Amino acid sequence: MTGTLTPELEAIVAEAAAAAPAFAATAPEDRARALVAVADALEAAKADLVAIGMAETGLTEARLSGEVTRTAVQLRLFADTLVDGAYLDARIDPADNDFALGVRPDIRRTHLPLGPVINFSASNFPFAFSVMGGDSAAILAAGCPLIVKAHSGHPKLSDATAEVASRALAAAGMPEGVFHLIHGREAGVAVLKDPRIKAGAFTGSISVGRLLADIAANRPAPIPFYGELGSVNPVFVTADAIAERADDIASGYLTSVSGSAGQLCTKPGFIFVPAGSALPDAIAAAAEAGEIPEHRLLDPRIARSFEERRSEILESPGVRAIVPGGIRFDEDGQGWATPTIVAVSLEDFRVGKEALVDEAFGPLSIVVETPEGTDLAALMPEFYEGNLTGTLHISSAEGSGTSENVEELRALVAAVAAQVGRVLFNGWSTGVAVTPAQQHGGPWPATTNDSSTSVGTSAIKRFVRPVAFQNAPDAFLPDALRDSNPADVPQAIAPAGESKSWGARWR
Amino acid sequence: MTGTLTPELEAIVAEAAAAAPAFAATAPEDRARALVAVADALEAAKADLVAIGMAETGLTEARLSGEVTRTAVQLRLFADTLVDGAYLDARIDPADNDFALGVRPDIRRTHLPLGPVINFSASNFPFAFSVMGGDSAAILAAGCPLIVKAHSGHPKLSDATAEVASRALAAAGMPEGVFHLIHGREAGVAVLKDPRIKAGAFTGSISVGRLLADIAANRPAPIPFYGELGSVNPVFVTADAIAERADDIASGYLTSVSGSAGQLCTKPGFIFVPAGSALPDAIAAAAEAGEIPEHRLLDPRIARSFEERRSEILESPGVRAIVPGGIRFDEDGQGWATPTIVAVSLEDFRVGKEALVDEAFGPLSIVVETPEGTDLAALMPEFYEGNLTGTLHISSAEGSGTSENVEELRALVAAVAAQVGRVLFNGWSTGVAVTPAQQHGGPWPATTNDSSTSVGTSAIKRFVRPVAFQNAPDAFLPDALRDSNPADVPQAIAPAGESKSWGARWR
Repeated sequence: MTGTLTPELEAIVAEAAAAAPAFAATAPEDRARALVAVADALEAAKADLVAIGMAETGLTEARLSGEVTRTAVQLRLFADTLVDGAYLDARIDPADNDFALGVRPDIRRTHLPLGPVINFSASNFPFAFSVMGGDSAAILAAGCPLIVKAHSGHPKLSDATAEVASRALAAAGMPEGVFHLIHGREAGVAVLKDPRIKAGAFTGSISVGRLLADIAANRPAPIPFYGELGSVNPVFVTADAIAERADDIASGYLTSVSGSAGQLCTKPGFIFVPAGSALPDAIAAAAEAGEIPEHRLLDPRIARSFEERRSEILESPGVRAIVPGGIRFDEDGQGWATPTIVAVSLEDFRVGKEALVDEAFGPLSIVVETPEGTDLAALMPEFYEGNLTGTLHISSAEGSGTSENVEELRALVAAVAAQVGRVLFNGWSTGVAVTPAQQHGGPWPATTNDSSTSVGTSAIKRFVRPVAFQNAPDAFLPDALRDSNPADVPQAIAPAGESKSWGARWR
Repeated sequence: MTGTLTPELEAIVAEAAAAAPAFAATAPEDRARALVAVADALEAAKADLVAIGMAETGLTEARLSGEVTRTAVQLRLFADTLVDGAYLDARIDPADNDFALGVRPDIRRTHLPLGPVINFSASNFPFAFSVMGGDSAAILAAGCPLIVKAHSGHPKLSDATAEVASRALAAAGMPEGVFHLIHGREAGVAVLKDPRIKAGAFTGSISVGRLLADIAANRPAPIPFYGELGSVNPVFVTADAIAERADDIASGYLTSVSGSAGQLCTKPGFIFVPAGSALPDAIAAAAEAGEIPEHRLLDPRIARSFEERRSEILESPGVRAIVPGGIRFDEDGQGWATPTIVAVSLEDFRVGKEALVDEAFGPLSIVVETPEGTDLAALMPEFYEGNLTGTLHISSAEGSGTSENVEELRALVAAVAAQVGRVLFNGWSTGVAVTPAQQHGGPWPATTNDSSTSVGTSAIKRFVRPVAFQNAPDAFLPDALRDSNPADVPQAIAPAGESKSWGARWR
């Protein structure tokens, strides 16, 4: 199977595999220093990198500059995460002669890095989910050699970022071979198939994500594949919330739909409002007042695909434009768009479901008007499988949990929670905070694997696996499991003898 | 797709799906009481159940009786685990106006049940990994409706166990439809393919496990599939350990290989010893002294397959029998075996690799004699992909970490750890303790998914997924995430403002 790699790729994968034991053995503090060095180096090179990125992606200087900061913050967050060591979930069960099932040996469990990982980077976050983005930071933090497949939308920026990162990693003393950048889908697929690769990460479309997930699952030795795919992020707005703050909701919605030209996986694609409410008018008014400038889409392919989806949606029966928006192409074939907001009755939405329900990647969103008495909780399974997010806008009285419709709202929250990774209240799903509690990832097709997250510190768990040590002498234990706990990580130590009373409280 | 189910299966899956929201909403204490009620009921019915099991499986009364106890202990352990709530990994990141990337909302994250799960039960643990075994306990504890596909080796015992469990669950007030038993591989496959099923668990052979894992991965909406498959559990014995306690090692090895007629996934299949050592003779002497009685294999199919593997191994060039053992068939076609131990030089092992290296399910194990200077660490990747366990027998001087060969041993431990779920020292891999730190599950082909375990409390994590709540009013938060923490679960609360100094220590 290794025979299918070009000589250049074979050298890269061999180097990554050879680096794995040494990288796994590096001290957490040293890997942390290396991540912080990469963060510092990216910020030092910000001006140059942003300039390259603007030319390649059409994203604004403010957006890209902010993204470099976010990328650096992510790297520093993972530096702290790996040294804190809580992600290792270190457990120590001391030997117990009184164990309910006979003498119990000393068992200790920690998590070890998986080995070399390939990360297919994203088009829409050329820094934060690209070469040194969140997935890469998590992979390196975990101690796994990293091969990044550059996105074809920003190859020069990828090369420039890789050069900055390589220099910083080497200067920080990381083993040779822990980081490589490759170009081209065929190269990425060949590496993903190689038996020395132990996991994959991906951010992109459902179709490509599925293709790669299937390759990972159908290898002779299957590997975990963490794909962040599409999502339409439904929003539900109550009549009371509209009565309380229609203008706020309208302008927040418009900002969320149009930011980064709507090319975000957390863009609200659908907003369910009571039929006859004031919200559509408020949205139209906000659009007129706000004058949202034209924004270039990431590349001509994405622009053409957006144009098609937009036409398809506008032509669906019963769809009316609240904010018409538009798209034009310049002489280089680049598409420039202003946001389009349409409305449709629930009845027509059901009729046009096939044309309407899938993600429109770009600045477009659909207002669905629901007749009084609609069971909103039942709409989730009717229209969607999995989503990254689901949002409720409710009034302050409803938020207090004392309104008459509280049980109806609880049912809606439960229905949303059952199909998403993040449930929001009175906010907007774009702009994902990078924090320990963040969850970015929901059931298929929002991701290929919803057991973890691609944003936030839990993301590191994707690239480690549990290993137990039974009756191991101290000299052969990983630091995290030694009684002396030299790395000072959290250790859950089971009290001896407790097994006798397991379950006794619940009889 | 639901159309492919028989009316009976359609009713079962529909009931399981309908029960999911109510089951997810049950209080942890109530689910705990239900698990303990099942444990108590199984123990009360022990005599009847064991009698059925003995007739169907050929396992001894002592073994099956002990297994009922183990099964009850597992259920009680999961009762405590789910109420303790540490598995929810509840995290609270309070709102933070000073966040490094701008105002940060309040984000809280817990884990919610996946929904209905199918569990394909095992042949070799008719209680502990069957109808109400470890996987089932973890699935019910997580709050997921459970459909068990009975193993064809003990259908009557499965029915009897299911009846006991159903009564106990209903009496404990669990929603109707949270537990069903089905029979037949076709039925199991049809249920696994149903879109309402959200995960699968399995214990069995590599070939069947792979078949089912592929079905799960290739569904229109793929789902996680946790298969416990085959393993050969290599053991490495140093010259010093043999000098110190050859007889102990020999008798421990023989007991581990022959227990339950070797039909355990943790049976040591290979033991690497220095060429010319005293261990083969000690093993032969232990076998003569111990007089291990004939043991019936689980069923005629397993017996015939063992007979074939045994012949294949005995006929491989350079293989010599240390303990000849044997197998005979009675008039019902059942196979009765005594343990077979063979020895082979490393050179001949390499030559006969194809015939020798795969698991022989039954009482057979292979001693591989390695010439002086063999790089043992390099043997792991040479012969094996993933295993459940790997074991070292070392001397007390070597255990102190001060022997001359300590670095060589450390390299061996690292190589073993990289390919197994559990590393043992001076013990035997059979007899897996059920504890919080246990890890039963290693890289493919030991399992289809090595991110978790099928034994020990961490097993519950396979059947929940993370969900975050952003700016949720208290009235709409799951109990585990409320400030008042009514369920008293561990909550990791991030200090506000800390993001400003992320990574600062490592610059």
